[in-house]
Order: sequence, then structure tokens, then C-alpha cells
Amino acid sequence: MERVQLAEDLSFSRVIHGLWRLNEWNHAPEDTLDLIEYCLELGITTFDHADIYGGFLNEELFGKGLALKPELRNKMELVTKCGIVFPSPRRPQYKSHHYNTSKKHIIESVEHSLKNLHTDFIDTLLIHRPDPFMDPAQVAEAFTELKQEGKVRYFGVSNFKQHQFNMLQSYLDFDLITNQIEVSAYELENFDDGTINLCQEKGIAPMAWSPLAGGRIFSSEDEKAKRLRAALTKVAEELHADGIDQVLYAWLLVHPANIMPIVGSGKKDRIKKATEAVHLNLSLDQWFEILHASMGHEVP
Amino acid sequence: MERVQLAEDLSFSRVIHGLWRLNEWNHAPEDTLDLIEYCLELGITTFDHADIYGGFLNEELFGKGLALKPELRNKMELVTKCGIVFPSPRRPQYKSHHYNTSKKHIIESVEHSLKNLHTDFIDTLLIHRPDPFMDPAQVAEAFTELKQEGKVRYFGVSNFKQHQFNMLQSYLDFDLITNQIEVSAYELENFDDGTINLCQEKGIAPMAWSPLAGGRIFSSEDEKAKRLRAALTKVAEELHADGIDQVLYAWLLVHPANIMPIVGSGKKDRIKKATEAVHLNLSLDQWFEILHASMGHEVP
Amino acid sequence: MERVQLAEDLSFSRVIHGLWRLNEWNHAPEDTLDLIEYCLELGITTFDHADIYGGFLNEELFGKGLALKPELRNKMELVTKCGIVFPSPRRPQYKSHHYNTSKKHIIESVEHSLKNLHTDFIDTLLIHRPDPFMDPAQVAEAFTELKQEGKVRYFGVSNFKQHQFNMLQSYLDFDLITNQIEVSAYELENFDDGTINLCQEKGIAPMAWSPLAGGRIFSSEDEKAKRLRAALTKVAEELHADGIDQVLYAWLLVHPANIMPIVGSGKKDRIKKATEAVHLNLSLDQWFEILHASMGHEVP
Repeated sequence: MERVQLAEDLSFSRVIHGLWRLNEWNHAPEDTLDLIEYCLELGITTFDHADIYGGFLNEELFGKGLALKPELRNKMELVTKCGIVFPSPRRPQYKSHHYNTSKKHIIESVEHSLKNLHTDFIDTLLIHRPDPFMDPAQVAEAFTELKQEGKVRYFGVSNFKQHQFNMLQSYLDFDLITNQIEVSAYELENFDDGTINLCQEKGIAPMAWSPLAGGRIFSSEDEKAKRLRAALTKVAEELHADGIDQVLYAWLLVHPANIMPIVGSGKKDRIKKATEAVHLNLSLDQWFEILHASMGHEVP
Repeated sequence: MERVQLAEDLSFSRVIHGLWRLNEWNHAPEDTLDLIEYCLELGITTFDHADIYGGFLNEELFGKGLALKPELRNKMELVTKCGIVFPSPRRPQYKSHHYNTSKKHIIESVEHSLKNLHTDFIDTLLIHRPDPFMDPAQVAEAFTELKQEGKVRYFGVSNFKQHQFNMLQSYLDFDLITNQIEVSAYELENFDDGTINLCQEKGIAPMAWSPLAGGRIFSSEDEKAKRLRAALTKVAEELHADGIDQVLYAWLLVHPANIMPIVGSGKKDRIKKATEAVHLNLSLDQWFEILHASMGHEVP
Repeated sequence: MERVQLAEDLSFSRVIHGLWRLNEWNHAPEDTLDLIEYCLELGITTFDHADIYGGFLNEELFGKGLALKPELRNKMELVTKCGIVFPSPRRPQYKSHHYNTSKKHIIESVEHSLKNLHTDFIDTLLIHRPDPFMDPAQVAEAFTELKQEGKVRYFGVSNFKQHQFNMLQSYLDFDLITNQIEVSAYELENFDDGTINLCQEKGIAPMAWSPLAGGRIFSSEDEKAKRLRAALTKVAEELHADGIDQVLYAWLLVHPANIMPIVGSGKKDRIKKATEAVHLNLSLDQWFEILHASMGHEVP
């Protein structure tokens, strides 16, 4: 599978696997290991986590699978996030739902992630959400310390708009290497508001969460979803694609911004279909036909 | 007529003539030549085109006029645009309406424009619309090649917001020299959203399309148009202007951003009236009275 | 009281006193002097003016108080603003309400302010509102001249969005040192749209006008005000604060952007309460509880 170079000594697989729902799959550690190995065989080497996924559980579930075959660690890139807290039996110290991007919290969260993931280092740490209470100087101190100690190799953000990205970047001595954003043919906001343009300007590849719009396209009866289903079905037929989800992945993959979609499924056939989408060459006509269906009108 | 310096060896006339509707005027080449010469006599030396105007016809109609007196070419600046495609008998290769800012398309479009306009070079080429599928690296390659070959002297954009402008500029080794935007006393969006501020920050003069708001101000019965007509009529009387269209041009011309309005009329008296607007010195009171009428309230 | 360093040789008190309503307090010069001395005793050394406050009267009222004890001038920082005009018996030359950021107007306005405030220099001059007709080159000329003549030490803006700030800054040889913006737990726009982020990026501390939302939080029956009152009352009890206004000040004061709230009251007890708010240490849980009440939902 194609890879995306994010730094001199870091690349991600073009399609990324996301562990957001790992706790829902009722996996024994052996099952998790099996899924990891299946992804690696397909060329998916990048795994996306967050401290909070599964109520602070999923990193640990993944780590238990990886612990069965620790030599796989060097064949993968681990991404995780921090900065959100909420009450949970696993984090009794958190009293309410809010953000926390203090130096102390970032470092403690990474320590948890390292332990839970059974690893000595995180390949890329992301600030999960733009924090209205962020002190960028504290984030910079935390990042610098974690980098110097070898605990985190690279840093990025998630769901940041331009001004939030630029503010944090201005406090750092090294480049943020990605912005993980919600983007799909259904959710165009980051195309419209300059978030993707800023990634292109900075030369960084965005990670895309909910590339299938959380399933809304498949089942929702809103007008946008209906228009999109029709356009996607037409293009799927034209390209002999294996379902409209493949076209949704391909719609992101052919975009010049090097968007890396995150596949959040635990089912092997669905993961495989996503990886095969890299071979679907949508024409410009088809790309815009899908865009127009989403917007409800043509471009001016 | 006053001129606006856009680069060391390029200036535009403060008022620009636009050929958007040339195909509607039923001009023989001799009529087009006559119009060109009339504009040049008035000091309007800059002519605004786009490959798509008139369904891919207008550049050719203009070129046929210019071909009758080729020595006029060096007395004018030709601006044209590319990046939009739609089905047309003149471009059977385009199957649907979409944008195309690929290197291949930009270069092919310029070749068409050169041939149709009967010229060896374009003074300024604009990307017509911000393309959500833009690969700025490809645009930069196309621009660089066209510049090196002497086919296009300078480059700009049209309808770009700040983030789109900054993204494309960051890929270029030379400065974009203009942004052609919709702006008038009726359409204030580019004043509000920072587009004009960015032009001022970069020191580039914007071209204004629809400076008369496409005629809406004259005939529309919406509240904004009615308020504006009243304010414009009052100011026209105070200044002894020749109609409210002159005040609309003057409202743009007195603004410090060096806005260059595009006059899209084929009628000589209307073109002349526009050029005379440069002598109408609106006061700050009058400028804001018109702004307030457009906004429906005073500034805070 | 804590101070905020805005330049090598300029700092403001963390809490600022605003003279917006001075004309409503029916103060004799002796009363004004008394208020000034009270503020200075509390550590409030920064006083916020604008030429237009009180219908072009308040600077003069303040100046008459200061004139009774001119030696206090060197114990305080005077901030004033210019750029808005409107008809007033005190300024018969202004015919209508509009902005004026021409070089001539800025310099004339400062001359008025110097005379009215009984001082030889302004510590910081702000452009009061972003002017759609601004010529940043003229503003830069005016600022440079005023600085060279020692009439104004430093410059800033008020109510500027990112693009307006960046445009003006790009024309200056020195840094704008503040942006005075409307911000409170009730008015979150400047948190959302990047205005505060830009201050953090540039390393400048914003001044906050209407930190109590103009009293709306205390009396308004809109849902946002009701939600906020409830959350503020709860936090005030938890912190043993002296009223919800203290919590409102503290909500701004604990934010890492070094926000400097402007207290606009003429009543000593209210001014004192504001200064005491610097000691209220809201927890992150409390800060976000108030934010959530204002937004009407939790952060994602």
C-alpha cells in the first residue's frame, strides 16, 4: 500500500486503522492480535487511538493483543490523543467533562498511553480537540519534554481550525505533522473553511475521521444523504466498485491533499474493501458529481 | 486615466473593460475593433476575459476584432481566466460542469486563449474560482512553465478567500498580482470576510466584477436595493453625478484598496460614464451613508 | 496587583478602570480625583478612555480631576482611542456618524485627547473599530509621526478580527501591543473566531470590555443568561466569592491569554470586588461548567 511521508523518518500507511470501537467487538487479546496482523498484511501499519476511546479502555485492549507478539511494534506506527477528560470508573480523578491541555495532564496522559499500549514510545501524539483554555506555552513545554525523553516522536492536532493550528505551531520549535479532521463527501466543512487548504499550505497530510460519515450516508433519509447515495451508487456502477463505501474512501484518496482515511471497522472484509479503494480512479467528472450531490447544487 | 501599478513592468487602467457579454452584442469584427479603439481613447487599456465567456466564444470574437489592427495589441493588457469547464459545442471534450486546475488543463486553456485572442502572450492569467480539488503544486508548475515560455506574464486569482489565496501563493516563486472579486455597494461580503483586507496586506489591487451588482440596485424591489437607490440618488444629486451608476463606480474608486472596477457594457456612453466616475470625490460622510444603506444599519 | 508586561517599558495593571460612563456619575473634579486615587491605591494604574466617550466629554472630565494633582500622571497609564465620529455639540465639524482613520483625523484626535486629559503623552492609542475604509498606510504614517513626536508611546486596536489586525500590523515597523475586545462568559465570539488565539499567537494581552456582559447576565431572562446565572451562582458559593460578578471577572482572569478586564463602574465597592477576583482560583471543572452553561451544551 502507498505510504505518506510525514517526516524524514516517519511515514503512515495511506489507509489507517482506527480503534475507536475496539471495546465493542468483544475481542480476546488473541482476536486483537489477529486483527493487527491482518491489517499489517494489507499494508495498514498505522493505528489510531485516543486515551478516551472505549471509556479509557481501548488502548489497554490493543496493548494486550500487541503484548502477545511484541516484535510487531516496530512494524507499525501508533497514534494516540489526549486533552479530553470525563468521569469514568477508570479515571476516578476526573470529576467532569472538559478539556485539559496543561503540561501536567498531557504528560500524565502519555504515561498512561505508553503503559496501556505496551510500548516505549508513541509515534505521533495529537491534541484531541482545540481547547478554549489552551495555554500554548504549556503544550509546547509538554511536547518538548516528551520528545526529548523519546516518549513521543512527533506531534499533531485533531479538529483544529486554522487559527488554532497557527497559534499552537507558533509556540513550537518543530512542525506539527498532521491534523486529524472529520471529512467525507457528506461533511464538507473542512473543505470550505480553509482547514484542508492550510494543510496543503503547510505541506502536511490530514487524517480523516468518519470517512463514511458515521454511516449516515447509508441509512439516513435526509435529502443530502439521499442525493449522495444516488450519486455514489451511479459512480460505483461506473467504476465496478465493491459498494458505495469504496467510492467514499476513493473520493478522499484521489484528493491531492493526501488525505489518510481512518477505517474504524473490526470486520476484515470491510477493512480490505477500504484498502482496495486506493485503486479506484475517480475522474474529475465523478469527483464533482459527488461533491455537487452533497452540496445540493453545482459549483458556481 | 489613472493607472494602477501591479508589477514593475505591468500596470492596468483604473477602469477595466470586461467582455463577459460580448457574444450578446451581435458585433461584427469591425464593431469589436471600434469598441476596443473607443476604450483605448478613454484610457481603458485593460480588457478582462475568461475562456468560458460566451460559452467559450468571446475570446475568439475579441480576437477577430483585434486581428483587424494587430498593432493595438501592445497598447493594451489582456487578462483571461481558466479553471472552469462545462459541456459546450465548442469544447466537446468537457462532459460535465466542474473545475479543472490541473497542469494539463491550465496549459491547454492558455493555448486556446492565445489562439482565440490573436496574441502571443497573456498579460495576466487568473484561476477563475477556488477549486476544492486544487493541487497547488500542479498550478505552480503550470504557471512557472507558462511564464518561462513567455506565454503568460503575470498570474492572479479570482473569487479566492484568504486561505485559498495564501495556499496557492505559498507554492509560487513569484507574487500573485490580483484577486478579481465580486464587490459593490450592494455586495459587501469581501469587505467583511477579510478578502479585501488581505489584498491591502499583500499590497495587491483587486479587480471588481459586478461593480453595479448586476443591475439589481436599479430594479430590484428588495429592501436593501430600495435603501441603496435612495442613498445613491441623494449622493448623485449632491455631487451632480450623471446617474447612480457613476456613484456606484465612484464608491469603489475612492476606496484606498485601489479597487479596479470592470465595466461590462458594450454601450459607449455607459463606458464613458464609468471612466468619468474617477473624478467624483465622495466624502467620507457620503461613502458611509451608502455603506449604511446597504447594511441596513450604521456601523457600531 | 499583578501587572501585565506589554512592552519592555510598559505594563498595565491586570484590572483596568474604564471611563466610558464617567459623564453619568455627576462627578466634580474632586470626585474624579478621589476615584483616581482610590484606583491607584488598589493597584489599578491603567485607565481606559476614548475620544467619543460621554459625547466627547469624558476625557475632559478625567483631565480636570487629574489636573488637581498632576504628579499622579506618572503613576498611571492612559489608554485612549480614536477613529469614530458622530454629530455632537462638542465636535460641530462632524456631520454624520462614520469612521475616520485618515492620518489627519488620527493626529487631530490625539491632539484633542492630550489637551483634554491634561497630559503630554498617551501611553497607548487604539483604533476604536476596524474601518472598512481604512488606508493602513495612512494609519501607519500617523502612528509613526505620533511616536516620533513622543505624543503616543504605543499603539493597539479595538474590536479587530484576525485579518484586520494582520493587515494593519503588516504596515507598521513596530508591534501593536493589544486588542481591546468584547469578551465575557456571556459573549464568546472572540474565543470562537480566532481573535483571542491570534493574541496568544502574537504574544499580546487583550483588554476585555463588557466583562460582565453589560449587566445582561444579572437581569436578562433569556435562556443563556438564566443558565449562566445558575452556573455562576453555584461556583460563587463553592469559592465563597462575593457575588457572581467576581466569578465573571475571575473566569477571564484565570484564562492563559492574560486577559485584562475593564471595570467600568464608578462605585468603589464594585471596583474593589473586581480587583479581589484575581485571587479566585477557578478550577478547570468550574471554568468549563460556566463555558458549558453559556454555550448551552458541553464541548464535544
